[in-house]
Amino acid sequence: MTTPFMNRALALAERAQGRTSPNPAVGAVVVRDGVVVGEGATQPPGQAHAEVVALAAAGTAAAGADLYVTLEPCAFQGRTPPCTDAISAAGIRRVSIGVLDPHPQVNGQGVARLRAAGIRVSVGVQADQARRCHEAYLHSVQTGLPFVTLKLAMSADGKVSTGKREDPYLTGPQALTRVHELRDRSDAIVAGVNTVIADDPRLTTRLARPDARHPRRFILDSRGRTPLGAKVLQADLPGSTTIVTTAYLPAERLRAYRKCGATVWSLPTAGECVDILAFLRRLGAEGVLSVLVEGGPTLAGAFLQADCVQKLLLFVAPLLVSDDVAPSLLSGFSAAQPDAGPRRFAFSAVERIGPDVLLTAYLNGIETS
Amino acid sequence: MTTPFMNRALALAERAQGRTSPNPAVGAVVVRDGVVVGEGATQPPGQAHAEVVALAAAGTAAAGADLYVTLEPCAFQGRTPPCTDAISAAGIRRVSIGVLDPHPQVNGQGVARLRAAGIRVSVGVQADQARRCHEAYLHSVQTGLPFVTLKLAMSADGKVSTGKREDPYLTGPQALTRVHELRDRSDAIVAGVNTVIADDPRLTTRLARPDARHPRRFILDSRGRTPLGAKVLQADLPGSTTIVTTAYLPAERLRAYRKCGATVWSLPTAGECVDILAFLRRLGAEGVLSVLVEGGPTLAGAFLQADCVQKLLLFVAPLLVSDDVAPSLLSGFSAAQPDAGPRRFAFSAVERIGPDVLLTAYLNGIETS
Repeated sequence: MTTPFMNRALALAERAQGRTSPNPAVGAVVVRDGVVVGEGATQPPGQAHAEVVALAAAGTAAAGADLYVTLEPCAFQGRTPPCTDAISAAGIRRVSIGVLDPHPQVNGQGVARLRAAGIRVSVGVQADQARRCHEAYLHSVQTGLPFVTLKLAMSADGKVSTGKREDPYLTGPQALTRVHELRDRSDAIVAGVNTVIADDPRLTTRLARPDARHPRRFILDSRGRTPLGAKVLQADLPGSTTIVTTAYLPAERLRAYRKCGATVWSLPTAGECVDILAFLRRLGAEGVLSVLVEGGPTLAGAFLQADCVQKLLLFVAPLLVSDDVAPSLLSGFSAAQPDAGPRRFAFSAVERIGPDVLLTAYLNGIETS
Repeated sequence: MTTPFMNRALALAERAQGRTSPNPAVGAVVVRDGVVVGEGATQPPGQAHAEVVALAAAGTAAAGADLYVTLEPCAFQGRTPPCTDAISAAGIRRVSIGVLDPHPQVNGQGVARLRAAGIRVSVGVQADQARRCHEAYLHSVQTGLPFVTLKLAMSADGKVSTGKREDPYLTGPQALTRVHELRDRSDAIVAGVNTVIADDPRLTTRLARPDARHPRRFILDSRGRTPLGAKVLQADLPGSTTIVTTAYLPAERLRAYRKCGATVWSLPTAGECVDILAFLRRLGAEGVLSVLVEGGPTLAGAFLQADCVQKLLLFVAPLLVSDDVAPSLLSGFSAAQPDAGPRRFAFSAVERIGPDVLLTAYLNGIETS
């Protein structure tokens, strides 16, 4: 069963994605006599959580009201006081929660504290939607690693480019907008040095939305092949760029990247490349919840080979390309384990995006139905 | 605007597909005072057309009734008398037609004859659906060639097999049923000798439906590599098999295929392979309206390269396969014209079929929206 109030809370949470890390982007709605009297979403780290924003908006109307919140309210003193205390102090009568927060300091204790204060609590209200809304945070709490979304695009015959230099893009403008929306809600974006050399992308978010956010940019480049003139290294580009490299990076190249204003991470290698898992651990340690990988066949193959992809977004464009002029979707994937067989999953969504089709699948980690 | 009566006529026509060639599989419904008093579909060649079946079922109730028919009624004496005469003789008051028949002996003359008999005629009733229903016949009348549907299946990374010999199939049982439904409504099915050698398919129709039909089987095999023990050559296999070959076929092999009960066509070559266009011309001359191509990468590439595919049915299965263990979807396609660029089209339908996704596109010929 869905309610307009939980739907509203979910919509508020969606809009806050990518703006609250390492905190979850939660939505909350205060309802009295069937009318919304206050609502809110999680503010940037150190500022108010969603429940507190919604209660403040409701003011005295919160007394005797119901609260709809997408994630279990926190029960501990962090950078802000526990939300459970604010909820009971405001006189809330009933709380409907989307999904429990597996964070070791919450994990049912939020519910227990609310019930101990005499508040009626329902858990699992629109649970599937809430779980999907918070998929990055939930994965991150459970694994210590960010949630990785791999975005790929291919022709209807599985090629990653048209093979035409003057018109290399497979997908239409609607797919491009969707990609910028994904960037807007992701903490970090990752590309490989091959993509930087071939396409010289900016990896910024370009949306009409005035509060659009640029994810932190990471270029996986084990040997320092990123050209110093690359757009991602330009000083006037909004947001930050990190070159993720290895001990193979020449020292003068390290200095040159730093001079451009880029951060440089030197990480262990796996084979001759950056160790993907070491990279994700570092991101997780820095509070990055969500990573969007926009790579070519080599980077995509490396993330899949390392079993480090939670969500696959595959655009299929309506065209056929010769097998002779463009590479296939993935490179290097499964080469090390030829007997493992194919990796099966399930499509969780199939959408038409302009002329293209977008297939969504969860590869491992948190499955949402 | 759709009407239940034209919908019923279209459903009758759909069920007759593959059973009436070279005639179109038409559906007709006689309606009096808002009630269906007779209905029917085209019978096998030489027997009654849909209109005559429906009028016979209606009997005297046809006088003053309305007729819904998916295709313009014929106006000429063929193996059966003109349907227009039967319609006016029955006293039909009004005729609603889906789409005009471009056959040179009809092409508006059916409508003219009905109007001359004082009958009110509407043309273009649910025209898009009617055009799609009759797409094979319409293409065939306009070009003299059969309508070619290319069925392909690939993994989400564009590979045509799992790479596992013991479990080579990408798609699920629902997709397989859909393929058998396609076979049932196709006049002919085409496979390449590589598929016969690799998979040893029967290419028969296996459906619960008691009146399931087996399409005529054609194996493209320029040099006679089809093994004499192949299932398609077994004497007890229902339906017929034709080996489509070239002057490269050794004479003793020709005799051996004939001894198996197979027909052998020797056709011109294009490069070292059978000339696809010559093959389709021969099929068209034999009254074949619809061809289902179930080939591997080489056959699919050859049909596309010859620009001889009207409809593409692409199953995408939810799995990822290594690039090292399985071939890509198409082979040889566009190799001869590297400057031509990709072939763009539009997806006309996107469906979930069990765990798989089916993308449908019209590549050329009759576009249906």
